Parts: sequence; structure tokens; C-alpha cells
Amino acid sequence: MDKKKLLQLLGEFKAGKKSLSSVAEKIGSMGYEDIVFAKVDHHRKQRQGFCEVIFAPGKTPAQVGAIAKKLLEKSDTLLVTRASAKAYKEVRKANKLAVYHELSGAITVEPKAGKKRRGNLLIISAGTSDIPVAEEAAVSADIMGMRVTTVFDVGVAGIHRLLSQRKNLDEADCVIVVAGMDGALASVVGGMVSKPVIAVPTSVGYGAAFNGLAPLLAMLNSCAGGVAVVNIDNGYGAAALAHRILSPKVEK
Amino acid sequence: MDKKKLLQLLGEFKAGKKSLSSVAEKIGSMGYEDIVFAKVDHHRKQRQGFCEVIFAPGKTPAQVGAIAKKLLEKSDTLLVTRASAKAYKEVRKANKLAVYHELSGAITVEPKAGKKRRGNLLIISAGTSDIPVAEEAAVSADIMGMRVTTVFDVGVAGIHRLLSQRKNLDEADCVIVVAGMDGALASVVGGMVSKPVIAVPTSVGYGAAFNGLAPLLAMLNSCAGGVAVVNIDNGYGAAALAHRILSPKVEK
Amino acid sequence: MDKKKLLQLLGEFKAGKKSLSSVAEKIGSMGYEDIVFAKVDHHRKQRQGFCEVIFAPGKTPAQVGAIAKKLLEKSDTLLVTRASAKAYKEVRKANKLAVYHELSGAITVEPKAGKKRRGNLLIISAGTSDIPVAEEAAVSADIMGMRVTTVFDVGVAGIHRLLSQRKNLDEADCVIVVAGMDGALASVVGGMVSKPVIAVPTSVGYGAAFNGLAPLLAMLNSCAGGVAVVNIDNGYGAAALAHRILSPKVEK
Amino acid sequence: MDKKKLLQLLGEFKAGKKSLSSVAEKIGSMGYEDIVFAKVDHHRKQRQGFCEVIFAPGKTPAQVGAIAKKLLEKSDTLLVTRASAKAYKEVRKANKLAVYHELSGAITVEPKAGKKRRGNLLIISAGTSDIPVAEEAAVSADIMGMRVTTVFDVGVAGIHRLLSQRKNLDEADCVIVVAGMDGALASVVGGMVSKPVIAVPTSVGYGAAFNGLAPLLAMLNSCAGGVAVVNIDNGYGAAALAHRILSPKVEK
Amino acid sequence: MDKKKLLQLLGEFKAGKKSLSSVAEKIGSMGYEDIVFAKVDHHRKQRQGFCEVIFAPGKTPAQVGAIAKKLLEKSDTLLVTRASAKAYKEVRKANKLAVYHELSGAITVEPKAGKKRRGNLLIISAGTSDIPVAEEAAVSADIMGMRVTTVFDVGVAGIHRLLSQRKNLDEADCVIVVAGMDGALASVVGGMVSKPVIAVPTSVGYGAAFNGLAPLLAMLNSCAGGVAVVNIDNGYGAAALAHRILSPKVEK
Amino acid sequence: MDKKKLLQLLGEFKAGKKSLSSVAEKIGSMGYEDIVFAKVDHHRKQRQGFCEVIFAPGKTPAQVGAIAKKLLEKSDTLLVTRASAKAYKEVRKANKLAVYHELSGAITVEPKAGKKRRGNLLIISAGTSDIPVAEEAAVSADIMGMRVTTVFDVGVAGIHRLLSQRKNLDEADCVIVVAGMDGALASVVGGMVSKPVIAVPTSVGYGAAFNGLAPLLAMLNSCAGGVAVVNIDNGYGAAALAHRILSPKVEK
Amino acid sequence: MDKKKLLQLLGEFKAGKKSLSSVAEKIGSMGYEDIVFAKVDHHRKQRQGFCEVIFAPGKTPAQVGAIAKKLLEKSDTLLVTRASAKAYKEVRKANKLAVYHELSGAITVEPKAGKKRRGNLLIISAGTSDIPVAEEAAVSADIMGMRVTTVFDVGVAGIHRLLSQRKNLDEADCVIVVAGMDGALASVVGGMVSKPVIAVPTSVGYGAAFNGLAPLLAMLNSCAGGVAVVNIDNGYGAAALAHRILSPKVEK
Amino acid sequence: MDKKKLLQLLGEFKAGKKSLSSVAEKIGSMGYEDIVFAKVDHHRKQRQGFCEVIFAPGKTPAQVGAIAKKLLEKSDTLLVTRASAKAYKEVRKANKLAVYHELSGAITVEPKAGKKRRGNLLIISAGTSDIPVAEEAAVSADIMGMRVTTVFDVGVAGIHRLLSQRKNLDEADCVIVVAGMDGALASVVGGMVSKPVIAVPTSVGYGAAFNGLAPLLAMLNSCAGGVAVVNIDNGYGAAALAHRILSPKVEK
Repeated sequence: MDKKKLLQLLGEFKAGKKSLSSVAEKIGSMGYEDIVFAKVDHHRKQRQGFCEVIFAPGKTPAQVGAIAKKLLEKSDTLLVTRASAKAYKEVRKANKLAVYHELSGAITVEPKAGKKRRGNLLIISAGTSDIPVAEEAAVSADIMGMRVTTVFDVGVAGIHRLLSQRKNLDEADCVIVVAGMDGALASVVGGMVSKPVIAVPTSVGYGAAFNGLAPLLAMLNSCAGGVAVVNIDNGYGAAALAHRILSPKVEK
Repeated sequence: MDKKKLLQLLGEFKAGKKSLSSVAEKIGSMGYEDIVFAKVDHHRKQRQGFCEVIFAPGKTPAQVGAIAKKLLEKSDTLLVTRASAKAYKEVRKANKLAVYHELSGAITVEPKAGKKRRGNLLIISAGTSDIPVAEEAAVSADIMGMRVTTVFDVGVAGIHRLLSQRKNLDEADCVIVVAGMDGALASVVGGMVSKPVIAVPTSVGYGAAFNGLAPLLAMLNSCAGGVAVVNIDNGYGAAALAHRILSPKVEK
Repeated sequence: MDKKKLLQLLGEFKAGKKSLSSVAEKIGSMGYEDIVFAKVDHHRKQRQGFCEVIFAPGKTPAQVGAIAKKLLEKSDTLLVTRASAKAYKEVRKANKLAVYHELSGAITVEPKAGKKRRGNLLIISAGTSDIPVAEEAAVSADIMGMRVTTVFDVGVAGIHRLLSQRKNLDEADCVIVVAGMDGALASVVGGMVSKPVIAVPTSVGYGAAFNGLAPLLAMLNSCAGGVAVVNIDNGYGAAALAHRILSPKVEK
Repeated sequence: MDKKKLLQLLGEFKAGKKSLSSVAEKIGSMGYEDIVFAKVDHHRKQRQGFCEVIFAPGKTPAQVGAIAKKLLEKSDTLLVTRASAKAYKEVRKANKLAVYHELSGAITVEPKAGKKRRGNLLIISAGTSDIPVAEEAAVSADIMGMRVTTVFDVGVAGIHRLLSQRKNLDEADCVIVVAGMDGALASVVGGMVSKPVIAVPTSVGYGAAFNGLAPLLAMLNSCAGGVAVVNIDNGYGAAALAHRILSPKVEK
Repeated sequence: MDKKKLLQLLGEFKAGKKSLSSVAEKIGSMGYEDIVFAKVDHHRKQRQGFCEVIFAPGKTPAQVGAIAKKLLEKSDTLLVTRASAKAYKEVRKANKLAVYHELSGAITVEPKAGKKRRGNLLIISAGTSDIPVAEEAAVSADIMGMRVTTVFDVGVAGIHRLLSQRKNLDEADCVIVVAGMDGALASVVGGMVSKPVIAVPTSVGYGAAFNGLAPLLAMLNSCAGGVAVVNIDNGYGAAALAHRILSPKVEK
Repeated sequence: MDKKKLLQLLGEFKAGKKSLSSVAEKIGSMGYEDIVFAKVDHHRKQRQGFCEVIFAPGKTPAQVGAIAKKLLEKSDTLLVTRASAKAYKEVRKANKLAVYHELSGAITVEPKAGKKRRGNLLIISAGTSDIPVAEEAAVSADIMGMRVTTVFDVGVAGIHRLLSQRKNLDEADCVIVVAGMDGALASVVGGMVSKPVIAVPTSVGYGAAFNGLAPLLAMLNSCAGGVAVVNIDNGYGAAALAHRILSPKVEK
Repeated sequence: MDKKKLLQLLGEFKAGKKSLSSVAEKIGSMGYEDIVFAKVDHHRKQRQGFCEVIFAPGKTPAQVGAIAKKLLEKSDTLLVTRASAKAYKEVRKANKLAVYHELSGAITVEPKAGKKRRGNLLIISAGTSDIPVAEEAAVSADIMGMRVTTVFDVGVAGIHRLLSQRKNLDEADCVIVVAGMDGALASVVGGMVSKPVIAVPTSVGYGAAFNGLAPLLAMLNSCAGGVAVVNIDNGYGAAALAHRILSPKVEK
Repeated sequence: MDKKKLLQLLGEFKAGKKSLSSVAEKIGSMGYEDIVFAKVDHHRKQRQGFCEVIFAPGKTPAQVGAIAKKLLEKSDTLLVTRASAKAYKEVRKANKLAVYHELSGAITVEPKAGKKRRGNLLIISAGTSDIPVAEEAAVSADIMGMRVTTVFDVGVAGIHRLLSQRKNLDEADCVIVVAGMDGALASVVGGMVSKPVIAVPTSVGYGAAFNGLAPLLAMLNSCAGGVAVVNIDNGYGAAALAHRILSPKVEK
């Protein structure tokens, strides 16, 4: 609901230019859309810790560049996920500070001045093949303002590798576990800490991994209670969930 | 590693009864199991907010009763999930205070004295058929010490029902969304708040819901970023995740 | 937004009891929920061709009876789907006119006075085993006010049976095709008419029908373009879709 | 049945050149194929709102060009779906007026003179990645003669974007909802209007979208009753269904 | 097309009672349905080797009895598949000669006088648990007039059991292979003979048999070329296919 | 068992060079392998109607050429399926008469002298996209010695196209139905004839065809009893099955 | 090949009653079946460590009893799996020593005299719900002659429980891991030992375990190399595999 | 636990530089990680029969080369699986003795001096298309120190080919069966020998093989008891399992 319009309407009413019933009807008919929109917009601003995000797949490099340019006009922060090197070239045209994270295909733009950070996020991955997804999570979480620690290649096939991470596990406020194949790392970590564990299945592996179905199901069935699961290969989604968990409440 | 044993060993060493090399070897050979066990045990105690839980399916009423009795010897709190009325009868023999939550099949035992609560948990469900799962989440969360508010039947087919829950959404620290069929409620709620949203798919619905596969996939693909997903019908798991999120950090 | 409240507020404003800014703020803060609710409610009333519907599975007979009773207090029309004979007994206690449709488990209550009907709906089913689902569609469509014709057992294994239905096909405004197994009837009918065809896969059949997956996929892949598909065994959903198609527009 | 042949036969019969029995037999033996063909042909002509359509995948550019050329000999309207730029080149050789719709790969040929249009079709898509499918629906619907309005990027993650479309929703006679990922938009729209809603799942999304399975199942399980579902990415099919719904009845 | 009607029409035409154009139109409008029907009916009669068949699941005992009674009024042969003992009781009321085949649930009625038989059908099953399906095939094939030999429990885990069936394999005109679990028997038999092999997967087995999916896929992928596959547990279907293969051509 | 060896053994026995027991033991120990091999080899020769077949996928062009050359040394007939143009080049080096069937990728070599043919095989396909698979079936069946008639593009969306094929259907001894999407053509044809119908699902189609799963399931669930199903896109397999059905018995 | 027959034949040959060629032919024509049978039978006897096994599901108690009785006539050892208490009653009639293992439904009969045992088999299960399957493995392995140690409830959610099993793991020659849900225990154990690990997925768990699919896929994708997987819930199969691994070679 | 550190600590304690309690605490706080690590490391060394393995997919050629170089600094043996020719080039830069196994993409480096071998491993494959996977198994097993015999193309479609392998089967200590399509070879071999049989499903085949799902399920359901199954196309995994089975026990 447009506040200006409302004030004008009330003014006219008080001035006797509009009858009670016609004003009441008018207010009702202005529709909820505007009010909702206003409210939500406000609510969006409060969420700004979440920078704007472009999901690149299915968009041409030129399109990615154009959207990035547009977003950077009203924001000094940008995250693009799953972008090709070509798309990066286009984004760089729009902003010279754009950084390309090659393994995950993420592109980031951030203001030079450091930001205030909150929350320790530990990201651990089971194998070297899971690193691209772990990087997507790390880059996303970093730009959202978390303090990120990454530990790679601590799969349960050598359980001692994980056990030696006790200190990292203890210091974290939240743990993202990235694992393909059997996804077992999520369960083991889930059993070692009582803090939030976010499991990201990856599509890496031999045939019966079925592009991530195997670790996805394993993680959903984690024998450690209360493990959060996100979509296959969705490193960004895991970071976004960590952000929800570690942010101070902003609505209200 | 048994501390007593270690002290004795060191004493003997100082007293010259044991050589340096034999003591060093002894310490090495005592094995990590005990150390690990000790460490983890301590860590378990700190987790006690999680009461002991029995998953009843696949156990006879007598077995459920026996396990419950044993657990109640060392704890004044108990949660059994998915129990039959018969199993409840058995548990009641062990403890007269046991309460049976009929819809979800949960059984709870709690000390009479109220406990300190922390964290506002909102549990909303899409349809009346999702209530048993929502109840499992609510009962579990309550016994874990959260302040629980439940709102049922606010599915997206009538989006206004959800929109009118703004206040509840604003006051919550964490939201559990229980929905079958299209699981769309999780996405909509995820888009309305920036706090943690835990989605629980339920197995309710016509044929192509495939016992919860439809909402499970929908929730994993929520277009609102960062929604946490747990197993189908797993109200307890959602509560356990909320507990992880809303608990003060205890390890370290 | 409560109209009474709004009028009162405007009255107080005009009377000078409330300042412009405080009234403007008040209106804004009343929230969109109420407005939306009011709007939608109005919109719901216009939809009343859709009678209230109870999906019985997962509810006890007593619960079905109680909900039915409550709904019948404000409506003279009721539809319950998938109800057991026991649930029917409970509903009959609430309303002596309740009719039980045994094959589909539908329960209906309708005012005695005939209603104005619009739209010719033809419901055809492939085999005798599909009849319960076809009946659910027929009963639902009838109570929604369509003129329903049903033709059973015209599966494509004897294509002549279908070809002899030319007249029925010609006279219909919309056709619901109920078929299990290979679901081929939907494609053939879709190729014979240019009017809307709604395909309902059923869960009837030997093993590789996988509880309706086979006809569901077949219908989604109908080689006749523009066939609408609804959920497995969802006769009610097909009727609801026909209702959407055959109703005069009511919103605006 | 060839009318000319039939007239000749009757003429010969009247002229006494053929006996009653031989003529009766002849008519019987001419077979139903021809009659059926004649009948259906007539029926096809009545359907001409449906222009001829070529599904390009699996055909070489040369083949697409050749079929297009042949169809354009007897029609001034053509629709090719999912065509490559190379296929377009071939079609353009056959007709200089051919237009290529790059996002969806649709090719259209239409007579210059405007056509009479009927029916307001609103096409809304959840995300920018769904636009190619939405475009296929829009181009197809346009050539079939509907008045098409398109609204992109109104996914439920920001429900206010959808709520602000009230006017478009009110003015439409039929709504096509194109959505990938969780497919939730279909349910929400289905709950906001009582007119026909056609849901098109798209194959866009992270791993557990399983190439469109997730939104397909979600849409089939829409908690808003009576939503029509078509095949994954099948924008053309959705338009064809809208055409069936919005056309005046033509058979009879 | 009704011959009587046609003759009358031609008579009136010759007699000058009807004009050429009106008669031509009349013949065209009589529709293909009747012609098709007549043609197909004739064709049905020629197919009578296929006795009438009732698929009992989803029908009440009373319904099965009623349909059986009706069918037996115009036929002295009947086959009911998957019937319960209660359904048999009902059928027996209609015909005292009805025989119940307990393992498969088949009910048969046959004229006392022996029939002429053609074709040697060998039915072999892998395990004892496959016998009910094999029996359904055997009973169905017998009533259709084939000479049936059955050999049970010759699964490939003991390949010698199969190899010792050389004589039976040599004498058969067609072989039905009934197997659950790995379905390997179909491949081995398919490699041992060059005659038609019909594979029937059964739903018997441990978890990952997924109710027959495992042998179904295995049989479709038989490394012996040209093995025919029918639906899971569909012994009747296998017999019907054998009947198609071993029957003299009857159409034309 | 080597006959020469056996004769020698018996000779030595008669000559008293070997005792009864040692000869008996020797015969037993010669092993069944040789006997089996001999027997089966003989049996293979009788099967020679089946020419040698190379499945090209997963083999390099050079490998295909080498195997083809080797096979052609002992046979004047060859069939390669799913070969690339490059593989064809290699095969042509080995035999100048090699013919490449471009649509299906089949390569054939046949002796110039015509062969004796037996059996009329009708191959019909639903859409133009199914033609490559239909061609594979046709080429395979032709080289196996059947008389092949092909009819393309008679899908059930225009049922009259199929009905006009009555004559072709009547003259066939066996019908292969090639169809993707809904696979409905197999059911309709299965209901129109009582001869063997072999259904080949194809992988053509929009998303929910799931690469042929949709028509595969539809065909396995054909409401016309006794339809034989082979693997997705397996035109060769369908021809091999037709060959089994139409061949005179050769074993014994 | 019947030895008696062979001796007789050779005798007649030596006695000049049969010519060389006729005897040679006779031996060839006796067929390989008998030889194969003899050979395999001998080979079966050598395998007798595998007692006879009856898979009870799908058999009536009476049938189980009858087969058991028959087997016990020629053997003093028997194993029935998945038997009901009623089936046990029937087996007990045949042999008073039959023991019923209630959790798994196994029935065993063994000679009183102890047997020579070989091989240490460790069976560990993740949760208490996996015990029935673990028991089936244990009972089966015991009757096959292995030394069996069982450790229950050592799932990875509390990894210390497993780590404290170092001694048991070290002493085993082979380890069977029984686990449902995430199946992670198999991976962890596989990473802790270099001896054979046999993974048995169980069907226990919440919805997305899909009756054992989740642990099955997880185990097939074990990040510890070389883990053997058997069918869901197939404790017997795991024991049979352990038997193959731990047995001295017997063929040759 | 670092031994040097421990010795130093004990020395200081004895020397009175540290009190009993402070030393005891120190030892406890050193954490189990080091101890575990030390222990496991030792245990890893004992496993050295397993050479270091790099799974190449998802790694760039440069990355594969770099990891290989690093591993070869501490080992004279290396196995890379699924590597491209380009990756091989990179590995060759690190070690001139690197051998590329083209079919499977394996790269091996081995010391020139022959190694002591133990265990006869027979690897048999069903078709020529399974050879790459069989080669991966063979190369892996060879480098692990087994005596490997390979037999290709003995699929069950010509069962005699397998039967003639009796000698090879008898001499093996363990058999790996590599098969795609119906996977039936595993069952047949499993029934012919009582030694360990390891089944490897391959992704070769027509559509309904679903990239190896068909043989995977078939092998899991092998009607021969106790067949071990590994992941689709996982030749390395099969070799690793054989290595576990055929190795002398090394732990303890």
C-alpha cells in the first residue's frame, strides 16, 4: 500500500471530499499486494547479509554478465555460482574486482573494506573430488560473512583422519559435511558433535552412486539424529542454511 | 585411558620400578579406545539435553518396555517414538508418569519439576493428515526443552492462511515445516523468513506422492535457498536438528 | 482487515480523536493478513461450486464424522472421499441424507432441491477395475454441478468399443479418461477429440504397473498433444479440474 | 470413403448397371478406413486452430526443412519446436517469413494478416531458467490464436512477487505455470484462482531435481485441487491443452 | 454398417424415393462405428480359442461370481485369474464343474469333451516360489488348447538341472521361463534354443528384488537375443503370448 | 567329447591294452565340456539363419572393422548394429559389398544370390522419430530372411491412420510395433490382431519419457493380453524374436 | 552318465556284441546330462558344509514341514530361514531337535556331536533393529561351521563404540556388517581392517530408507575399497559368502 | 601420540621437573588423535599390498600428474584408475616406467624386480564390451600381487562356453565375474563353484539396462547363495575385495 496515496486519501476524507464508505472501500480495494510488497521489501533489506546470487547454468555468458552488471549497480557485493570462464570474462567487464573461483565456477565481487564477521563455519569434505562443491560452500559462506575453515579429504575410510579434527570440530559453530559415494562422513560427524551439521551429497562416484542419489539417501537416513540435508552438489544451499543458523534474528 | 592406571604407572616409573622404555611402550599400548571412550563419554554427558530415545518399530511391546525400564534407571526423562498402545502399556508398568501421545505414537516421561527452556520453535503443518508427524516433532522438541508453538493446516492452497501467521513466524527462532503432497509450504515459508527452516516431508497423499518421495524431492529443491531437509515422516529428526541449532554450544 | 475496525478508525480520525499519522500507521500496521483474508474469503464464497471436501484416509471414523458435522453447520453440501463404511456411519449421524457410494468410498450430502447444472462431462474408463476411481470422479463432478455421463470398460484392447462412443464424445464439453495398466485410452481419446481431455491413471494392474506409475508416465507422454494429467487414482482431482474448465469465470 | 466413388457407384446402380447386392457388397467392402479417414479429415479441418507442428529433436536440419516445406505447401501456418539454428536456416529456405525464437528453439510461420483471437492466457514462470519452456508455450499459444500475457520470475521464494500479479490472474481465462525445482508455484497459483491452471515442470535445477522429476511429482501432488499437469519441459503441450480449454466446441 | 439398413436405402434410392445426394450423405453419416464393430465382432469370433478371462483382483467374490455366470451363459469355457477361495465358491454356484487351482488362484470351467490341441508348450520355473505364476501360465495355456509340460525348480544356481532338460527343450514349440530373483534362467534357456522363449519375471525374493523389478530388467536385457518379456507375475500373459505364437492364423 | 579320442580309447580297450575300469573312468573324466560343446556347436550351425551380429557401441571403428573381417572369413553374411559412419568405412575395407543403413547405423553384408524367405513381418512405428529403431528391426529381419513390410507414423493420436492398415495387419504373420512416448500403439495393435505382437519401446520423447521407461512400462502393461516386449530401442532384439517365432523348428 | 550302463556297454563291446561305431555313437548319445549330473552331484557332496536350506516365505507351514522332513531323511543338518512360529511347529514334528530362532525366524537342526569349526567370523550390527538380520547371519554361519562372534549396536553415530571393538576386529578372519539407515558402518569398518568385509543392508528405517535402498546404495559406494555387498536383509547370503571365503578349497 | 614427546615428558617427570598430576594431565590432553594416527599408520604400512590408488575422474591431467609424482616419492608402486591419455602423459613425466592400459584407462608403476605373488584370481567377463572393466580388475589385481587369469566373452547366452572353463574355475582361489545386461553369468558361476565369487555389474547395454542397474539388481538377487557384489563398473573394487580375501591376515 502506497503510503503517499493513503495519506492523500485520509486527507481528502477529513476534508469531506470523500465519504466514509467510499474511503473504507478504497482502502480495502487498494489491495494487499502493495502492503505485502512494502513489508516484504523491508524484510528483504534486513536480509542483505545474503548478497544477490546468480545461478549461471542455462544462461549465456552475455546474460550472466548483463545480470551481474545490473545487480552491481545497486550492490557492491555479488555471487555467481556454476559460471564458466567465459561468463567470468563478461562479469569482469562489469567489475574489475570480480574474482573467479575456478574449481567451483563461483564468481565473487566484494567491497575492499573488510566486513564484520560472525560465526565459525567448518567445512569438511570426504574426498578430493568433493572439493569443487566444498569450495562453492566456502566461497558462498565467506561472502555472507562467516568465518570459514575448510578441511578436505577426511573420509571415513580412514576414520583417524576425522578423529584428528577434534579441535576444528570443537571450535566450529556449525559444520558443513560434503561427501559423495556413501555419504557416511555426515553420520560420523553428526555423532561426534551436538552442533548443527549440514550434509551436502555430491554426484561424484561409480555407477551405483546414481549421480548423488546414494549419498543423498544415506544422509537423509543418517543414524546420528538431526542432520540437515540439502540438495546434491548444492554447496551454495549449505552455506545459505549455515547463514540462516548463524545470523542474529533480523525479522520483527 | 584409565586415569588411575596411568597414575599408578607413572608412580611405578618414578619409583624406578619400571624403565623409561617400558613405561612409554605401556602408555602407547593402552590403546586409544579407552581414551576415545572417556572423551566421548564426557561429551555425551554434555549432550544430555537430548534425552534417551527409543525407536519402537521392529521391537515388541515387551522389548520396548524393557529398554524403557533400563533407561529410566539412570535418567528421569524418556522419549519413545512410533510406539503402539500395547508398547505404552508396557512402558507404563515401568513408570506411572509415562504419557502416550496417541496421534504420533510417542511416549514421554519427564520429571515433574519444570525445566528451563530456551528457543522458540514454531511447527507448522500443511494439512490435517500431517499432524501425527508434526506432533512427533512437537513432543520431541518439548522434551528437549524448546518452547513450542504449533500451527496446523496452513497449506499453500490457501496462501492467506499462511500469510496470517506473520506474527508467529516473526517470534520464532526456528521453524519446522511439516508437509506432504507437494511440500510447497517449505519453500514459501523459506522465502518469508531468514531464520532456519527445517522441512519434514510426510508420506501422506495420493499415488504419485510415492510415500513421501514427492515432497522430499520438492523440499530438497526448494527455490528458497538454505532450507534444511530431514527424512520422510521424521518429526523426531526435525526436533533434534532444531535442538542442535537452538542449543548453546556445549563441546569444548 | 476487519471492516468494522476500519470504519471505527476512520470515524475517530474524522472526529479528530486520532491524528493523521497515527491513523495512517494504524492502517499500515493492521497488516495485510486481514485484508488478504477478507479478500480471499470473498473469493472463496464465489467458488462455492466447489463444495467442502474431506479426504478421509488417515482420519478415524470419529474424526471424519466430527469434521463433517462441523462443515454441515455452515453448508448444505458435503463431499467425503475414500471413506470407510464405518466413517459413513459417523457421517450419517450428523446428517440423515448422507449417501454412501460404496465402490469409491465417497460420501455425499446435497440439498434436496435440484441445482442448476452446467457443462457436459463424459467419464470413460478402460476396465472394470478402474470403476471405483471413475465413480469418485463422477460423484465429485455431480455434486459440483456438472451433467455427468459415464461409460465403462472401453479400453483400447478392443478399439471398436471406443469408436462406438462417437456420439458421447461429440456431446461432451470435457472428457475424463480413467485408465490403469498402459493408460493408452487417454492418448486415443485425446486424438479423437479436440476438447479438453483429463487423464487419471489408476493403480490397478500386474507388477510392472508399479501402482500406477506405468499409466501415469504413459499419460504424461500422450502422443496426442494437450492431454491434462492428474495424480494416480485421483478421481476427485479430475472432477475438480473439469469444474475449473467448465465453470463461468468468477473472480474479478 | 471417396465421395466421388460413392456417387459413381450409386449412379451405376440407379442406371441398372450394377445389381443391388453387388452395390451393397461394394459399399461394405470399401472398408471403414476411407470413411473413417474422411470423417477424421473433416474433423481435422475443424481443428485447424492447431497449426501443423514439427518436433525437431532427432531430425536433421535438412529433414526439418523438407518436412516444413511440404507442410507449407498446404498451410500458411507452421510451428516447429526445439529446433537448432541450423534447422531454422533450412526452414527459412522454404519460407522467408519464418521466425526463429532463440530461447525455446521454436520456429513459426504465420500469414501476415492478423487472425481473430479468443481467450486470455496468462503464462507465468518461477525463475529465469524456466523462460525457454515458457517461451515455447507462449509462441505455441500465440500461433494457435490465444491472447498471451507472460510474467516471468515470480517464484514462491518471494511470495509477494506472485501476490502482486492479482490483476493478471483475474483477467486470465486460463493460467500456465512453468516451474522447475520444487514446482511450488503451481500449487500456490492453483489456490489463488478457480480457473484452469496448467502446470509445466521444467528440468532446471540441482541434482535431486532429477531432470524435472521433482517438480513433476510436486505438481501431480498439488495441494490445490484440480491442477492439470503436462510433461516435463513441454511448453507446447501446455499451450495445446489451453487451446483445447479455450476453443469453442467444434466437433459434432 | 447395418446391411439391412443399407439395402433398404439403396432400394428407396432406386425407387426414386431418395435423391442421389441424400443417399450419398446418408451412407456417409451412418458412421464407421457400426462397420468397425461388425468387422471386429467377426474377428472376435475367430479368436475364440481365447476363452473369456476375468481378472479377479479388485472385484468382490460376488462380483466375480456374477460376471462368471453371465459369461458362462454364452460360453462353455471360462478362466478366472487370481481369485480367492471365496470367489471360487461364488463361481461354483454358477457352474458345478468349476475347478479351483489353489496355488495360482485360477478358476477354470471347460466342456467335458476333450478339445483338439495344438502346440507343445514347455513351462519351466527357476524356484519353488515361482510355481504359483507357472501354474497360472499352465492352467491358462491348457484351457487355450496347448499341450503343456511343466518343469519346476531348475534355476541356474545348479546349471546341470537345466542341462538335463535337453529333451523337453527339444520337443517344445515354445518355452515359458518363470523366474524371480536374478531372472537368469531366461537368458540361459534363450541361449540353448532357437525357438520362442517367453520370460515371466516373478515378484519373489529378498529386498533388492524390488517386487520383481530385478528379474524384469534382467530379462529385458537378456544376453540371448530375441527373448520375449511379459509383465511381472503375469503367467496368464505369457500363456496368451504363447497362444498367439502357436495358433494358426485366423484373421483375414 | 572328442570322437577320435573315444574311438582310440575303445580300440585300446578291445585290444586289451586298457582294463574295463580304467576305460570307464577315462570316459567319465573326459568331462562334459567337450560333449556339450560338440552338441551345442552342431546346434549353432542349425541356427545359422541368425547371421553373426556385432553390437558396435563401445568398440572403436578399427575394432568393429577387425571383428567384421574375421567373421566374414567364415560367413558371407554380416550384421553390425549401432555403427558410426567411421566404423562403416572400416567394414567396407573388409568387404566392398557392405551396405550402411544410415538412420539406424546398421551395416549389412549379404551374398548376392537371393535367399529363400519365409514369414511376413509387418513393422509399424508410431512416429517419425521411431524410424531409426524400426529400421534396425527391418534391416535385421531382412537379413534373417523374413519378408518385411514397414509402415511408419501411424500413432494412436490419429487412430484412423492405424485402422487403415487393416490389410497389412491381416497379411502379416507377426507384427513389430515400435513406439516411444506413451507406447499406446502396441496395445491398440495387440487388440486388433490375434497374431504375435512384439513391442519395442523407444527412448524418444519429452522429459517424463525417462529415456524410454514410459513406453516400456506401458507396453509391459498392455491391456491387450499376450504382447511380447523387448528392451528399449532394441530393434534388433525384436527382429530376433520374430525370427524365433517364424522359423521352422530346427533343434532335435 | 550312468556308470552301470557304461560298464555294461563296454562289456558288450569287448564281447563283440556291439560294433565299435555303434558303441561310440551310443556313448555320445547318452547325453552329457548324466555326466554333468554325476560330476555336479559329486561336487555337491564336497560342498556339504553348506547344509540344505529352505527359504520359508511363500510356503505354507505344512509345506515347510514336509520339505524339512524330506531333507532330514538324507541329512542330519537343516536350516530354514524366515519361518513363522507355525512353520516351526511343523518342522518340530519331523525332528524333535529342531530349534527356533525367534528374532530371525530361522529353524535349525544339527547333530548333537560337535563339529570341527574353522574361521573366526565377526558379525556386527549398527542398531538394535538390525539384530534379526544379524541373527540370521549368525545362525547360518554357525550351522555352516564357523566360529561366530556377534557385537550389536555399534553404529557410527557413536564412533567410539566401534573403536572399542578393535580386539574383536583384529581376531576375526572375516567381518559381516549389518546396518540399515545410512549403512555407514560398513565403510568405517572397511577402512579399519584389511580383511574381507561383507555388508548387509537392512530394510529398517524412516521413509527415505526406501526399504533398504539407502543403505544398499551407500554400501555399494563404500569409500573403503573392496567391501562385498549382498542383498537387503539377506543375513543368510552374507553367511554363505563368508563360508565361501573361509572354506578350504574343495573342488578339483 | 608422538613418542619423542612422550619420552621427553617422562624424563622430565623422573627428573622432578614436572609433578605427577601435571604429567598425567599432559598425557591425557595430548589427545587420542595422535595415538590413533600412529596406530593406524602402522596398520596402513601392514596393508602395503594395497598400493596407493588415484581415482582420476574429476581431476585435471595436471592434478593427476602432481598427485602421482607426490605418491611416487614415497612408494615405488602406483595405480591410477579411469585416466585419460592426457593424464597418462603427465604421469609419465613423473616416472618413465609408467604403463598405460588403454581400454580401462589404468596407469601403473611397478618396481622392476618381480614380486612374490599369492592367490589365483580368475577374471571372466560375459561380453567383449565388459573387457574395459575386466581389465581394470586385472591390472589392479596384478599390481596387488595376485596371479591373474582372464577369460573373456563367456556369457550365458552360450552356456557351453562357460562350461568349458571348468579347469580355470577349479584352479582359481577366487573368481571375479564381470557382466552387463542381465548379469546372469554371476549366478551361473556362483552355482558352479563353492569358492568366493565377486560380481561386477557393468553399464553396457540397451536402454533398460539403465546404466548398469539391471545387472546390479540381478547380481544382488543371484539365486546362487553368497555371491559378493561391488559397484557398477568397479573393476578396481572387485580386485580390492579379492585382495582382502586372498591376503594373509596382517592386522594384530
